[in-house]
Amino acid sequence: MEHLRIPGPTPCPADVLQAMTRQMINHRGVEFGQILNGVTAKLKQLFQTKGDVFLLTSSGTGGLEAAIVNTLSPGDKVLSVSIGVFGERFATIAEQFGAEVTPLRFEWGKAADVDAVRRALKAEPKIKAVLATHNETSTGVTNDLASISSAAKEFDKLLVVDAISSLGSINLPVDDWHCDVVVTGSQKGWMVPPGLAMVSMNQEAWQAQASATMPRFYWDFAQAKNYLERATAQTPWTPAISTIFALSVSLEMMLKEGLPNIVARHARVAQAARDGIKSLGLSLFAKESHASNTVTSVRSPDGLDTAKMLKILREEHQVVLAGGQQTLAGKIFRIGHLGWVTEDDIEIAISALKVVLPQAGFRAS
Amino acid sequence: MEHLRIPGPTPCPADVLQAMTRQMINHRGVEFGQILNGVTAKLKQLFQTKGDVFLLTSSGTGGLEAAIVNTLSPGDKVLSVSIGVFGERFATIAEQFGAEVTPLRFEWGKAADVDAVRRALKAEPKIKAVLATHNETSTGVTNDLASISSAAKEFDKLLVVDAISSLGSINLPVDDWHCDVVVTGSQKGWMVPPGLAMVSMNQEAWQAQASATMPRFYWDFAQAKNYLERATAQTPWTPAISTIFALSVSLEMMLKEGLPNIVARHARVAQAARDGIKSLGLSLFAKESHASNTVTSVRSPDGLDTAKMLKILREEHQVVLAGGQQTLAGKIFRIGHLGWVTEDDIEIAISALKVVLPQAGFRAS
Repeated sequence: MEHLRIPGPTPCPADVLQAMTRQMINHRGVEFGQILNGVTAKLKQLFQTKGDVFLLTSSGTGGLEAAIVNTLSPGDKVLSVSIGVFGERFATIAEQFGAEVTPLRFEWGKAADVDAVRRALKAEPKIKAVLATHNETSTGVTNDLASISSAAKEFDKLLVVDAISSLGSINLPVDDWHCDVVVTGSQKGWMVPPGLAMVSMNQEAWQAQASATMPRFYWDFAQAKNYLERATAQTPWTPAISTIFALSVSLEMMLKEGLPNIVARHARVAQAARDGIKSLGLSLFAKESHASNTVTSVRSPDGLDTAKMLKILREEHQVVLAGGQQTLAGKIFRIGHLGWVTEDDIEIAISALKVVLPQAGFRAS
Repeated sequence: MEHLRIPGPTPCPADVLQAMTRQMINHRGVEFGQILNGVTAKLKQLFQTKGDVFLLTSSGTGGLEAAIVNTLSPGDKVLSVSIGVFGERFATIAEQFGAEVTPLRFEWGKAADVDAVRRALKAEPKIKAVLATHNETSTGVTNDLASISSAAKEFDKLLVVDAISSLGSINLPVDDWHCDVVVTGSQKGWMVPPGLAMVSMNQEAWQAQASATMPRFYWDFAQAKNYLERATAQTPWTPAISTIFALSVSLEMMLKEGLPNIVARHARVAQAARDGIKSLGLSLFAKESHASNTVTSVRSPDGLDTAKMLKILREEHQVVLAGGQQTLAGKIFRIGHLGWVTEDDIEIAISALKVVLPQAGFRAS
């Protein structure tokens, strides 16, 4: 058995995979409508929102594109709070669709400085929206989203959040923290194969939607809302039915465990990962105060051939970890621990690392 | 067991569904790269193309949006050859992204008149591209795509084809017929759950792509090509891994049966459906010379309560047929027969109709 410890896709429980074998049904029929309504209601509970939540047949990146094109117009000024690869991606999408992006970048491995966010918003009153990453998968850092939201709302800005690798694993009370649009993806904490993005929209987001002129068709939330609220709930376009069957099962499991318990489990597992890494004589890439509870980033020490280490782990120990992305390639590696994960899974990864690190050139000092 | 006879999603063979239970693997790892390369090569065989074929995590409608935003610029003049609901949808997407669409509409139930296409292209020399539907699911009509292509190429236009419900079921030699961009979807003739669109691009399409300025990020084929051609083949964004596992199995089945045999089987099954309908005293909605081999449309005769008939068929016979869409609601019903289908499946549907039609008000004359 392979131990897939990357920050998504994540391993799926047997019952979730079993749900994928169900035969197709009519996506415009009564039974599917009931399933869609049930899944949507459960997602709202886990998003902690009374707003709308939509399922999109796409990866998480598609969800980010949907969030942008539904709320912005070409020429709109946007503040991008970026702490890594996925923060940059979010800003690039906005730029591609004609937004004027003011980048506010922080050193990779650190969280966003909320005072700097406040200063940037003060300096440019015409900014309409703030794009922020809750959990930056590429660096293993979780932003203080509640404080970023306070800053954004102090200046009355729309807040659009990439919570792809946090929601359902790290606490994110969407309504309490006043996040207007929040995006996540099925293959992260939700324990489901990739293929679905889930996005919430509140009243402020709908107000923005009404005047937003970025071109949209596939991603249009007005269409999604129209179809979802029909007598037989539907999606506008044929959805990933099997993945919705799977999500229905995983959401049941999540509600049974309870969100506070899930959040606490992720915190415990992440602590075990950080403690384990330090016990090996390695050091964490992200400052521990902002270290993510879904992915742990580790500095590759001098002498370590990271690519060789990942290869031996995979081939001889069936432990699959992730390397660094872009400028972090070869400089860090990452352990994913979100979704269907316990301390035992971390123990397996740390034990394998203990054997493989010296084989890949690491000498503990 | 339910007999799902709508024009997609279609029933999936047991081996295809079983493939969906496979545990997640790293979508940027060597094994997934091999699967992606294998699936892409098999798709090229069945598209009958030496061009590129990309997998998108989306429904077919997402594939249509991708085809448009990769090849056109705002302000481009486009001829829309429309014979039903999906032709209209294709044109609407182009309009949403700023194309100037010249609609060329034909009566629902009829195929496009190729001379009219030629006249329209002659009348407006600035037209850059032709949007055409190969098989119109809403009316059960298959266009003469080879002739539409001849007309488009006579005037040196880019040809962008919605082949969502035809490719892999009805013959469509993409290269021989000089179709520049062709879109299909996993839940149709491919016998796989929904969640993947497959799109081909030839050299002319790439030339258009290079200068096309419609905004795009998630759908960008330049990114798709870049990632697919890496040492380890990948998709730019996390793909619907399970659905690709399933597609890999179904493509093996399709190549084993052989494309000419698949096309012949669909022709036989469709003939059985049309003969069966006529044997019941009903009449076909589409002219038989252009009737689709993947979906049969049937006129609802005077006296028949179509909604009641569909309900009894579903509840008492587990036979699920489709109604008419938009202005055709209540006026036609449709039998899907694409993908995993044989004459026996048609026999079941026709036998059930024979019982239910009188119960829903039909009196044969």
